[in-house]
Amino acid sequence: MRPVYLDNNATTRADPEVVQAMLPFFRDNFGNPSSTHDLGAAADVAASRARLQLQTLIGAELDHEIIFTSGGTESDNAAILSALDVLHDRTDIVISAVEHPAVLTLCAHLEKTQAVTVHKIPVDRHGRLDLDAYRAALTPRVAIVSIMWANNETGTIFPLGKLAELAKEVGAFFHTDAVQAVGKTPMDLKSTAIDMLSLSGHKLHGPKGIGALYVRRDVPFSSLIKGGRQERDRRAGTENTPGIVGLGMAAELALKSMNDVATRVKSLRDRLENGIVQAIQNATVTGDPLARLPNTANIAFDPIEAEAIVHLLNREGIACSSGSACTCGSLKQSHVLSAMKVAHSAVRFSLSRDNGEADVDRVLEVMPAIVQKLRDCPSPGADRVSAEDVQRNLASAAAEQAAAHEP
Amino acid sequence: MRPVYLDNNATTRADPEVVQAMLPFFRDNFGNPSSTHDLGAAADVAASRARLQLQTLIGAELDHEIIFTSGGTESDNAAILSALDVLHDRTDIVISAVEHPAVLTLCAHLEKTQAVTVHKIPVDRHGRLDLDAYRAALTPRVAIVSIMWANNETGTIFPLGKLAELAKEVGAFFHTDAVQAVGKTPMDLKSTAIDMLSLSGHKLHGPKGIGALYVRRDVPFSSLIKGGRQERDRRAGTENTPGIVGLGMAAELALKSMNDVATRVKSLRDRLENGIVQAIQNATVTGDPLARLPNTANIAFDPIEAEAIVHLLNREGIACSSGSACTCGSLKQSHVLSAMKVAHSAVRFSLSRDNGEADVDRVLEVMPAIVQKLRDCPSPGADRVSAEDVQRNLASAAAEQAAAHEP
Ligand SMILES: Cc1ncc(COP(=O)(O)O)c(C=O)c1O
Ligand SMILES: Cc1ncc(COP(=O)(O)O)c(C=O)c1O
Repeated sequence: MRPVYLDNNATTRADPEVVQAMLPFFRDNFGNPSSTHDLGAAADVAASRARLQLQTLIGAELDHEIIFTSGGTESDNAAILSALDVLHDRTDIVISAVEHPAVLTLCAHLEKTQAVTVHKIPVDRHGRLDLDAYRAALTPRVAIVSIMWANNETGTIFPLGKLAELAKEVGAFFHTDAVQAVGKTPMDLKSTAIDMLSLSGHKLHGPKGIGALYVRRDVPFSSLIKGGRQERDRRAGTENTPGIVGLGMAAELALKSMNDVATRVKSLRDRLENGIVQAIQNATVTGDPLARLPNTANIAFDPIEAEAIVHLLNREGIACSSGSACTCGSLKQSHVLSAMKVAHSAVRFSLSRDNGEADVDRVLEVMPAIVQKLRDCPSPGADRVSAEDVQRNLASAAAEQAAAHEP
Repeated sequence: MRPVYLDNNATTRADPEVVQAMLPFFRDNFGNPSSTHDLGAAADVAASRARLQLQTLIGAELDHEIIFTSGGTESDNAAILSALDVLHDRTDIVISAVEHPAVLTLCAHLEKTQAVTVHKIPVDRHGRLDLDAYRAALTPRVAIVSIMWANNETGTIFPLGKLAELAKEVGAFFHTDAVQAVGKTPMDLKSTAIDMLSLSGHKLHGPKGIGALYVRRDVPFSSLIKGGRQERDRRAGTENTPGIVGLGMAAELALKSMNDVATRVKSLRDRLENGIVQAIQNATVTGDPLARLPNTANIAFDPIEAEAIVHLLNREGIACSSGSACTCGSLKQSHVLSAMKVAHSAVRFSLSRDNGEADVDRVLEVMPAIVQKLRDCPSPGADRVSAEDVQRNLASAAAEQAAAHEP
């Protein structure tokens, strides 16, 4: 049976065109872009083209606002640490409670080891940011705000334009971890107040081990990795030319398929969600029904431990996840759902342009029996969020969700 | 005409077997190793195999002493910053004057922004470390010593075993940037006192954008890039599985061809050097005649600016470099030659197992005319090192070199 891959928020299959574009840079044009001979020059030209492809995808004003990095995590770390270095008399960082560990872990470390205060803005049961708390945290002490464009578990999209403008008012830098949003939703950075943006190749059918940090041209920047003068002194280390070329191609393909994701993939996702919610009692879609990535379905099946469902789906050849890949292995509760207080755990199905009707059919075919089986023998751990909280929030979330699905 | 690539210390061509090994991990086994489903598990198994391949190449005791990074520069940064973090009451760093910018630039930054003292140990005209100065710098204030295994410009090899033992005596960590040495010279780390070692994939016919840091098992480590719990909490970010697999294969192939490099490639290099020195007046091989990488020839043609030679060689389809790739573009003097006080600039020919007799023949064919042409119209800038220093050192270096070449 053909395996069904619905874990695209963890990582995507590299597009065959991406791999094709990379190959010559391993074999023939393998030069070091910093070298002065022809082979070096060829690599340099290829990197410029990729920068342009990325610029176009995210609507940056200049190609040199793009710095190539090793991935989303490095970009997130680099943005935050740069801001603290540049605005060294400011001590505060503002983030959401549902950021990726790339932001959360770094901030926790900074709080522990340096004179830094981190404001974690709470979210409501749909994962929406508490705007009052956000406004209250914005003071002239804030060096940087880092709020993700879209959440990796629920797909909830934050009102970035507005958040960035508010940050600007207190002179703070505004960074967004857009690792899950780039390629799934249109962007035009030059018309926003966003100063920095992180993205990662392998989340948009590009290669692993490559990412980028957008840094608006008038934003001073201090590099995380120091050494040679690559990337205009903003990221040292021999350029990963094949990776850069692959990321450029992935950006170009993502732009081309943006419409397909917004329509066909979104309707696949909706059919998957509706099918599950209709067939299975007490299955609730988490996340903001009004502002959500088109590819992500995060569904709680209380009181079942999602990991058990993921495990049984895997046996059926269906790959999906409970929470983000980075916290798996450790069976601890999702910090995202925990902040939303709607569920103990949830199954994340994340689609991409690679998916088709048959994938959704397959899940809908096997889900009811799997959930039934597990409900017949419930797993432990159902008391990790107050049962009251969950019941109350589940009920009202379901009601609002029903309302949102009406025309 | 087939191009002649003699810039392997800048970067190497990925071995076709390396590319072959990577391909399935873009296309089929593209899972995220942190995912719990089968596709994730397959990626995890592949990474384990690569760790073993690297372990074998460098003679580490355990596979988990290998941490995958994005390259040599990140590894160097991570090692030094970790040591400062772990031994936070120590303030000193000891390095050589001829380290790569990945170490030098970071140390300069630390000295400027933190209460850190950097001791730059000088080298003699062969690029050999001043052992008295080294001993003098070793105090209980030293958090880390970072001395390269072999220099990227001259190929000079440092007496690592001894240097590491001396560092141990004062309780400092010992790190070595072995980016140029790994794969070119046998290693057995478990029988040394080396605590950390950096390597980079693209210098040993592996992919760009991947490297590793060896951290001996009893050495506490604090990660540079923070986020998910990958690499046992020592390097966050989704694993670059294709890159890791490629690096593993490159390590295996390097071990297989170690003998070829030590014999055939070395004799190609020697023939190149001797041919040039015999045919061209005032051409001097820099570096330690007794302890040098088998693949590297660094030759000064005073008073000609090396960049001019590199440029004319490029027109003949021969790729080589003047100094390291990272400082090119900026036509500033090599800090390595500057520290050695033997020449203003020099041409680096760096070979690999990809080279053959014809490559050397081609260089020997065109060099005399190129040098003659440039000597007929000398370039400016010949006074950047004291002319006296250069004359004195050139004369004695040439004499010693002649002696070393005798049986
Ligand atoms: C000795 C040495 N150290 C470190 C590096 C940096 O490695 P990378 O460019 O892969 O980051 C290089 C090569 O550029 C090198 O030759
Ligand atoms: C929202 C978000 N930010 C950051 C990352 C980290 O990206 P990477 O694993 O490529 O470093 C991820 C994915 O793991 C993510 O989903």
